[in-house]
Amino acid sequence: MNELEVKRVIGLMSGTSCDSIDAGLCEVYPNMDVKLIKGINYKYPLHIKEKIFQIFRGEATVSDICKMNFGVGECFAAAANMLIEEFGKPDFISSHGQTVFHYPFDEKIDDISLKSTLQIGESSVIAQKTGCMVISNFREADIAQGGQGAPLVCFADEKWFRGKDKKNYTIQNIGGISNVTVVSQDYDTFGFDTGLGNIMIDYCTNKYFSLPYDKDGQIASEGVVSDCWLECLLQDEYYFTEPPKSTGREYFNPKYIENALKYAPKDPKDIITTVTALTAKTIADAYERFIYPNVGIHEAVICGGGAYNKTLMKFLRSYLPSYIDLKTCEDYGISNNFKEVMAFALLGYCTYYGIPNNLPCVTGAKKRIVTGKITY
Amino acid sequence: MNELEVKRVIGLMSGTSCDSIDAGLCEVYPNMDVKLIKGINYKYPLHIKEKIFQIFRGEATVSDICKMNFGVGECFAAAANMLIEEFGKPDFISSHGQTVFHYPFDEKIDDISLKSTLQIGESSVIAQKTGCMVISNFREADIAQGGQGAPLVCFADEKWFRGKDKKNYTIQNIGGISNVTVVSQDYDTFGFDTGLGNIMIDYCTNKYFSLPYDKDGQIASEGVVSDCWLECLLQDEYYFTEPPKSTGREYFNPKYIENALKYAPKDPKDIITTVTALTAKTIADAYERFIYPNVGIHEAVICGGGAYNKTLMKFLRSYLPSYIDLKTCEDYGISNNFKEVMAFALLGYCTYYGIPNNLPCVTGAKKRIVTGKITY
Repeated sequence: MNELEVKRVIGLMSGTSCDSIDAGLCEVYPNMDVKLIKGINYKYPLHIKEKIFQIFRGEATVSDICKMNFGVGECFAAAANMLIEEFGKPDFISSHGQTVFHYPFDEKIDDISLKSTLQIGESSVIAQKTGCMVISNFREADIAQGGQGAPLVCFADEKWFRGKDKKNYTIQNIGGISNVTVVSQDYDTFGFDTGLGNIMIDYCTNKYFSLPYDKDGQIASEGVVSDCWLECLLQDEYYFTEPPKSTGREYFNPKYIENALKYAPKDPKDIITTVTALTAKTIADAYERFIYPNVGIHEAVICGGGAYNKTLMKFLRSYLPSYIDLKTCEDYGISNNFKEVMAFALLGYCTYYGIPNNLPCVTGAKKRIVTGKITY
Repeated sequence: MNELEVKRVIGLMSGTSCDSIDAGLCEVYPNMDVKLIKGINYKYPLHIKEKIFQIFRGEATVSDICKMNFGVGECFAAAANMLIEEFGKPDFISSHGQTVFHYPFDEKIDDISLKSTLQIGESSVIAQKTGCMVISNFREADIAQGGQGAPLVCFADEKWFRGKDKKNYTIQNIGGISNVTVVSQDYDTFGFDTGLGNIMIDYCTNKYFSLPYDKDGQIASEGVVSDCWLECLLQDEYYFTEPPKSTGREYFNPKYIENALKYAPKDPKDIITTVTALTAKTIADAYERFIYPNVGIHEAVICGGGAYNKTLMKFLRSYLPSYIDLKTCEDYGISNNFKEVMAFALLGYCTYYGIPNNLPCVTGAKKRIVTGKITY
């Protein structure tokens, strides 16, 4: 193995909302720290976005998928080129791609496993259109080793927080869904989805206030919590299921939310306040049920959109034990908006040097391996 | 770049007939010669084969394609493991994969190119199940550079024959379709599909004699050529089209053949003889029209299933100018059954060492590049 050096890496990532491709120029250091130099969003052209949603809906043919793998690759290349124009070529690009299907289940045909995942955004297109080496496709190898191919960001959480100040951390992401990574000094890193994140808050803010989201938690700060309704919402069986567990928009879907709203308080502000409290309470409950019995936590580090919701953070503070420090990832120099991009820059750095970059204790893979493919 | 060394490479390839995966253990030398140590066929399990044909027919969803990418990867790994059990691990595996879609056409959406290709048989699965490094996905980068992503085997033809004995060669593959590579001392290598290969011979042998193919050209040797019907079949416009050009089973399909058979002689043996002569004559005509005016040829090297058809070879001998030597690739130590596998072993070898391995003059790509992806 070559001696580790500082590398400039452009990380590329697009989530399931398909709003835009996140691109971040990072410096990755031999101690695995990652510094974001600049992060940008590249909006998908309208018809490309429509085509991706067509794939999501299962309405795409092999022709569509073949073409969109290359089309999305061009978009990823365009995103990277925006940074390259300003900062010059990086040492390499690390691309997660656009997930269009993820099937982490044990199904067989003729004794052949069909557990699988599919990210589009052809790496050869990115490489040829940027002139840079591309490292990509991090989930496949983990699945080939019997893992779930997810979550991968835990790997970065572990590298960034394990052993730091001799403390034990929960790295709590609050996106649409909320998920936690537990990074301690003495135990294997583990993680799971705690449940709702912003999905229900966003849905209700949109429904009652015609706003895309509750900026800074302003609306939630003006209502009061309906204890009855909150208690009722907390009865969902997901919150009682033992980890490892994961959930998604398929479960907490509009039908689920509309059903819950039948029992909601009358004042829309109280609704927003209560569902904001719900996200905080389910996180605190999950810690109490599934984390503290195994690991004593010193600090909770919040990231994702939820970190900007001041009311949500206030609720979290009140529900978590007072001895736990509440921080955000920005306190550690980790960009809240581009954390995933930074994590994939790190994953690519490890692939480049042949350093194992999956976490079997989190994904369930049989062993630690070097994931990813290199395209020159 | 590291100094070139002899490498042991397992080449993996599966054609559109989906009969089996060809796997060949090769030694690749710094002078680009490839020696086949052992070649084997791995038959796809029945339900996997059915699923692949479902993808061919455009009836597969994103879920099917995602799963079959991994399922076919397991089959490719199993094929490689048969060789690994006998000979131990190679230096790396070079896998072409299973093409399920190829779209070398200029189509755009939101100004984004959709020219593309899709080979399944996940390289991460092959790597994890064999414990070997895998080099794969050779067509994508050529397409990203504006090429057709095919034919790739011409690259090996050029390496193997260019400058050899100071002669100019046609490397004539007679598979289902026939294609030629022209490798000369002074001109850029070029190639095109000459037209029919064995498709029509096989179809008629099956229809009239219930045999899968005309072994050794035995049946064809017993009939006589119908000059009228041959003349009529030679009028197809494809034969007059200027290269670069390519064709396939989509064009010379059962409907095309059935239509041609309306004007066929009565004796089924005469039919087999005439369609065998047709393949030979279209090759000779193509040389006369499109090759000799540019390049004087000293030798025609036949490969593919057609090389085993003695009657076809006899016709070829009679139609080609007498000054052209007629050889088969076996005369040059190149396995007829595993030539493609040997070619992909060479392509992987070049990727490994960062040697450009596309032929822009053949594929139409804008420049020479290193194609392929490396999976550890």
